[in-house]
Amino acid sequence: MKIRVPAIAVSLTIAAAIAWPAAPGTVAAQQPAAASLIITNGIVITVDGGRRILNPGAVAINGPSIVAVDTPAAIASRYKAAQTIDATGKVVMPGLINTHTHAAMVMFRGLGNDLALMDWLQKYIFPAEAKTVSPEFVRIGTQLAVLEMIQSGTTTFADMYYFEEEVAKVTKAAGMRGVLGQTVIEFPVPDAKTPADALKRTEAFAKQFDHDELITPSIAPHSVYTLDARTLSAVSALAKRLMIPIQIHLAETSAEIGMSQERHKMRPVAILDSLNFWAPTTLGAHGVWINDDEIAVLKRHNVGISNNPESNMKLSSGTAPVMNYRKANVSVGIGTDGAASNNDLDMFEAMRQAAFQQKLVTMDPTAITAAEAIEMATLGGARALGRPQHLGSLEAGKLADIIIVGMSKPRQQPLFDPVSQIVYASRGDDVETTIVNGRVLMRDRKVLTLDESKVLSEARAAADLVRKAVQQ
Amino acid sequence: MKIRVPAIAVSLTIAAAIAWPAAPGTVAAQQPAAASLIITNGIVITVDGGRRILNPGAVAINGPSIVAVDTPAAIASRYKAAQTIDATGKVVMPGLINTHTHAAMVMFRGLGNDLALMDWLQKYIFPAEAKTVSPEFVRIGTQLAVLEMIQSGTTTFADMYYFEEEVAKVTKAAGMRGVLGQTVIEFPVPDAKTPADALKRTEAFAKQFDHDELITPSIAPHSVYTLDARTLSAVSALAKRLMIPIQIHLAETSAEIGMSQERHKMRPVAILDSLNFWAPTTLGAHGVWINDDEIAVLKRHNVGISNNPESNMKLSSGTAPVMNYRKANVSVGIGTDGAASNNDLDMFEAMRQAAFQQKLVTMDPTAITAAEAIEMATLGGARALGRPQHLGSLEAGKLADIIIVGMSKPRQQPLFDPVSQIVYASRGDDVETTIVNGRVLMRDRKVLTLDESKVLSEARAAADLVRKAVQQ
Repeated sequence: MKIRVPAIAVSLTIAAAIAWPAAPGTVAAQQPAAASLIITNGIVITVDGGRRILNPGAVAINGPSIVAVDTPAAIASRYKAAQTIDATGKVVMPGLINTHTHAAMVMFRGLGNDLALMDWLQKYIFPAEAKTVSPEFVRIGTQLAVLEMIQSGTTTFADMYYFEEEVAKVTKAAGMRGVLGQTVIEFPVPDAKTPADALKRTEAFAKQFDHDELITPSIAPHSVYTLDARTLSAVSALAKRLMIPIQIHLAETSAEIGMSQERHKMRPVAILDSLNFWAPTTLGAHGVWINDDEIAVLKRHNVGISNNPESNMKLSSGTAPVMNYRKANVSVGIGTDGAASNNDLDMFEAMRQAAFQQKLVTMDPTAITAAEAIEMATLGGARALGRPQHLGSLEAGKLADIIIVGMSKPRQQPLFDPVSQIVYASRGDDVETTIVNGRVLMRDRKVLTLDESKVLSEARAAADLVRKAVQQ
Repeated sequence: MKIRVPAIAVSLTIAAAIAWPAAPGTVAAQQPAAASLIITNGIVITVDGGRRILNPGAVAINGPSIVAVDTPAAIASRYKAAQTIDATGKVVMPGLINTHTHAAMVMFRGLGNDLALMDWLQKYIFPAEAKTVSPEFVRIGTQLAVLEMIQSGTTTFADMYYFEEEVAKVTKAAGMRGVLGQTVIEFPVPDAKTPADALKRTEAFAKQFDHDELITPSIAPHSVYTLDARTLSAVSALAKRLMIPIQIHLAETSAEIGMSQERHKMRPVAILDSLNFWAPTTLGAHGVWINDDEIAVLKRHNVGISNNPESNMKLSSGTAPVMNYRKANVSVGIGTDGAASNNDLDMFEAMRQAAFQQKLVTMDPTAITAAEAIEMATLGGARALGRPQHLGSLEAGKLADIIIVGMSKPRQQPLFDPVSQIVYASRGDDVETTIVNGRVLMRDRKVLTLDESKVLSEARAAADLVRKAVQQ
């Protein structure tokens, strides 16, 4: 993977590595190293290679990075923290990575339900978007989405939308991490009259957030059914030149396969492969109607997949062949899709559904265990987005994107198995503390980086625009 | 339906009918009638025949019954309430009816996950039950379950377990409504060495809670694969004599079909039909592996079905033919199943999953709309349990089983469609107030009828028994 790494994160990761203490016994009476934050006494689900659970365990953080994961006693002896969070009885785990969403579409939540994807898009979403989507609308919608995501334990999200620089500003201000894709689509959209406009916007956006610590600019060609081959090639060339990840809707519905055949005389993976479309980091969202030959192509080009079980069920899109992807060692993360087709951004729901859907469709109850669901929602997502060195598990040297999940609700008792309880009996609302890049964004359910009442009142005003748009 | 109606409820329903005001204009300057409780200014989802939504609306309650559902002004002019709850911006709807659970099995939540039904039952659940289940254990487990159910908006639950008189005592003390089935099974179980013992226990149980206002005693033959024909016949005879509902696991897995063929030389519905097993109220739990001919038999005998989508997905049991049941006008409610295979008792999750699963399997996104999911979780459940005259909708004359659901969380904004928001973006945790039989059991998330900390500490102690049992 040649995906660009934010410069500050790199330097601090190196600093963290320096702070890593010498092996016990090598230095007598060693001074404790500095840590900006220690989370201690929790049930630590590491999602590291060995799927280690430390109970109790502790995590030491310095600046934006994790410097150690160990027992509370070991951490206390080695580190002196500016701030300590006691996580007794709570789960401490990597922040969730939402590999596919359209954040600002929370503004269309609940608009036109129980419809097929194409009906829903063409009768509700595209017309509503045409009349409402402006930089201000995207700013307001993204604020609401980011608030919901921080409240439900998502620390990184991959976004595809319009005016992505507004998404970036809101995300950065709220302290979240985003892989933010500027949409390219063949027809006129709110922020671009032509694909050429969208490419220009993408380049400016990539420059604006170049080497940002939290924002990874990305390009989001909508799909093969809304783009000509020439534009797909231009997108690919730009992504390769700017060294930015590509996000694309890929084989979401069976209708898409037909439309691809009609427009390109090829199935989606085939047309992309024929154009040598693949960038160093390419994420295919959905990947439902994909056969084994296509999986081999995706694997060959290191394409990651975002599995969106709730959206795929609600819209009757189908079931992604997740077990086949995993067998072929294709990186699979989990996404919520936009709240308009889910209808929320709660990765806990998506994680549970990812397990349930595979168990149902394969008729194998061992398909996607609770541990595998957590891994997909964290490290799998990091892999699919090309960032496994930095994100997705609690390990020294990785970035400190961490959530603390309360386990004391009656519906979470008794607690025999924290991994099972996280996937099958917990919700986004159980997340008490959300930390991104070492910074506490939510503490005891209070979001510190957004003014919740202002976010909600702005969203209410913007919702009136949507109401007017669909009434016309 | 000849299902027995609790005497007190009947008399108060009549009282309520008397309190129903004369048509406007017939009596000048009429005195306002007494109401024990008015819920006003809410978004009232009635689930009545016309699926009326009153926004804003109000519900007047007197004693255990609803006396009127109307606009806030109309209710204010006609009734004088001892107590008023302001539900501005909140949804007021019928309490949820969980048509299939094993309440005390919350004590096994998270025990042996990601396994097939038969493995899970035989390796974990049956051995753990054999070593732990006592009247005290059932009391403690049911307390925890009832706490969780009240907190997530369930007002009636249908239960199948052991020591059902303990379940009844806890349920009644907490103020919930239960259709509680004493288990009958061919092999020795914690509360009965033989089926004859279980039948005796059932008769005593039915006598103990005869004409109870909240408890409907019931008999729960486990399944055709765990019972001989002779016992099934004895169960049926007893149910008919005592006029109590039957609950039975019915065609849950494809393995069950094979076991039924082996034991009875017939499929599950056929063996039951050959025995004329059907009582005035019979509830088949799961009903997954049921063909159209069998649906016709179930319809002919007015058998209700409990659809348990989460359990069926988690255990890879399959998908109930809910659309076919509905087409044939078979009553279908929704159940969570026991928390050991779900893993919670949250009917909001079950409702959403009922919609999602049908949309996925039929590949029709219009299958089970949000309104239909709510109807299944309320009135559908009331029908499946033989109580549509008393439960399942907000209508004058019905029992006052009502929940008030907060709609102000960021993940519930904007609020274009309250029906969609309830099913696709809300959780049990959003329920603020739970009312059963006109009595407020939870107010602003505080459960008034149970000592939560005592329930949790007793559950923790009992969990240690379970840990020991599975370690042996």
